[in-house]
Amino acid sequence: MHTAVSLGGVGMTRFAADAGDDVRTLLERASTRALDDADVAAAELDGVVVGNMAAEAFEELSGLHNALAASLGAHGAQADRVENTSASGASAFQRGAQAVASGAADTVLVAGGERMSAASTETATGVIGSIVHPEEYVHGVTLPSFGGLAADAYLRRYDAPYEALAAVASKNHGNGARNEYAQFQTEVSVEDAADSPLVADPLRLYDCCPTSDGAAAVVLRAGDKGEVVVRACESAVGTHAVADRDDPLEIASVRTAGERAFDAADRERGAVDVACIHDAFTVLELLELEELGFYDAGTAWRAATDGGTALDGSLPVNPGGGLKARGHPLGATGVSQLVELVWQLRGEADGRQVDCETGLAVNVAGFGNNAVCTLLEGAA
Amino acid sequence: MHTAVSLGGVGMTRFAADAGDDVRTLLERASTRALDDADVAAAELDGVVVGNMAAEAFEELSGLHNALAASLGAHGAQADRVENTSASGASAFQRGAQAVASGAADTVLVAGGERMSAASTETATGVIGSIVHPEEYVHGVTLPSFGGLAADAYLRRYDAPYEALAAVASKNHGNGARNEYAQFQTEVSVEDAADSPLVADPLRLYDCCPTSDGAAAVVLRAGDKGEVVVRACESAVGTHAVADRDDPLEIASVRTAGERAFDAADRERGAVDVACIHDAFTVLELLELEELGFYDAGTAWRAATDGGTALDGSLPVNPGGGLKARGHPLGATGVSQLVELVWQLRGEADGRQVDCETGLAVNVAGFGNNAVCTLLEGAA
Repeated sequence: MHTAVSLGGVGMTRFAADAGDDVRTLLERASTRALDDADVAAAELDGVVVGNMAAEAFEELSGLHNALAASLGAHGAQADRVENTSASGASAFQRGAQAVASGAADTVLVAGGERMSAASTETATGVIGSIVHPEEYVHGVTLPSFGGLAADAYLRRYDAPYEALAAVASKNHGNGARNEYAQFQTEVSVEDAADSPLVADPLRLYDCCPTSDGAAAVVLRAGDKGEVVVRACESAVGTHAVADRDDPLEIASVRTAGERAFDAADRERGAVDVACIHDAFTVLELLELEELGFYDAGTAWRAATDGGTALDGSLPVNPGGGLKARGHPLGATGVSQLVELVWQLRGEADGRQVDCETGLAVNVAGFGNNAVCTLLEGAA
Repeated sequence: MHTAVSLGGVGMTRFAADAGDDVRTLLERASTRALDDADVAAAELDGVVVGNMAAEAFEELSGLHNALAASLGAHGAQADRVENTSASGASAFQRGAQAVASGAADTVLVAGGERMSAASTETATGVIGSIVHPEEYVHGVTLPSFGGLAADAYLRRYDAPYEALAAVASKNHGNGARNEYAQFQTEVSVEDAADSPLVADPLRLYDCCPTSDGAAAVVLRAGDKGEVVVRACESAVGTHAVADRDDPLEIASVRTAGERAFDAADRERGAVDVACIHDAFTVLELLELEELGFYDAGTAWRAATDGGTALDGSLPVNPGGGLKARGHPLGATGVSQLVELVWQLRGEADGRQVDCETGLAVNVAGFGNNAVCTLLEGAA
């Protein structure tokens, strides 16, 4: 990137099954908190980017960024909205970072939000189902179906017990219990997870993220003098149809985006102290950690069962609860991962604080047809 | 912009009331034409940006950019979709140009598309109505209502005849008759326009753009060696609620975006040889030309009636037919304006060719709550 980019402030709403407000209100609330945190007035913003997947279908709303700029008072700002299905938040962040890096803007608000509770089950299923390749979706294969197939293949191939998945769920729910912004703030034991209803064999209820309402926001500023600096934000499309992948457990988008981010930041995997991984299903946390090069193929599950990815492990993963426990309001998720990293890097994560200088976030679209990988570093 | 950006190739589908294909197919068709024109293979693309307003609501489709990248074979590209209501196309172009300018990408496909025919009237009205400030929309004020109010105010304030609006319609339909990609390719006389049914007094049928299906695409490349160079692409939000504007005829977003574009390009108004203006309603062509500084307030209508904005006038406006005659498939429009400018700047506009080296396009969101202004120049 030609111009360095820093994170000036962050904020979010508590994620919830039904927040009771429309997405415009949620975006405004998170944005106001981020602006306050950054000590930036809305009038100083020369860019506003909204990350949102489907407000048109869920709430019959369009032009969220124009409404947000108006309600905040960001007069004359450059503004638009970015959609990348379940990775809309991180793609909005990337678009904002590139605006700063290109010299087009100096101070950009990126706000991701979604109100999923407003959609009928029929609408939500149809719109979210359209993420999947149409030749697969027509056969009834939805995202949870793919999650179940991948989980089954993973456990069989690597001779891992189901409890490895339950361990991911238990860890992330435990972290969520320490996060006042999480949708679920109660501990879930491995036994509880293993006893929960089957959703897509072998995935059970606690292996799957919920539907959520919520918003998260960050303020980007030109220069590398901020408390937290954006070292890289890289993305890649992967194979759209899962059937076209050489290996059903491959997520090429995550691998490519990760490689690009480490290259762009000129950092090694070992530099990462904390990671926010797109755990829409527990098995995805394992697959993504392996694709990113943190663990060899078929070994990440042992880190889940032996505590390697716990808050006090060698690589704490999803300290804020992940999609599993913090919740997954589609367009908000990618931004909320970065909010969590900033809190961690600034030492403000209270009961879930880990020792860290470098954080990584991965936000994944669909079942891996696109991924965005971001590397943040705290001030030295 | 830190890195210069050129236009390597362009393509579009013929705009139509019902194209008979879904937006994914339309985007792929326009993109293939732009890639062929640029002599770029899809595998060379490191960026794919889709401009689309509401495929989730209109067609229950999401993640268009991932489907497009997959169908073209743009493996591993950075991809997302940008929405800015009726200016989604130009905002997608801006996002693509900034990706190149930031150093994040070298070769980017920007494809805008919409299939409005797929939506029920109820859905289309609801989603498009949500562009308007909710406190105005709740009173039943839609975009055509605002158009009618502005047209009435313009004609009264400047003592202009209704025929000034009809002259805009007649000119743009005449230009559309020379454009094989236009939805409407028949001449419309001033008398015919004046005799057409009233829509929102004083606006008549021929004063209003149609709903349309279609797609348009361009290929952006790093460097200033292309046949057409992007000199500036600037945007601005304006006052969201029309009632909050100091003057009901003010479109601050267009004024600001235009000023920024001329400043960024270091060019004077007089350098512009051809302009594509967002004429969703005939009166908007006049208001925008005045906000951009081409005409003093209250005088642009005379350019319409005396031929100043005709193909052989001092400033040809909407040589491709504008939104009026080429059509207005929301997310495609901003890109189709740039396709037309490229054809003009390369001397490939056949029966509607004007003498030009510099072209300007303005794509407007809603009733002016956001605008994007782009300046292109042909090779010297």
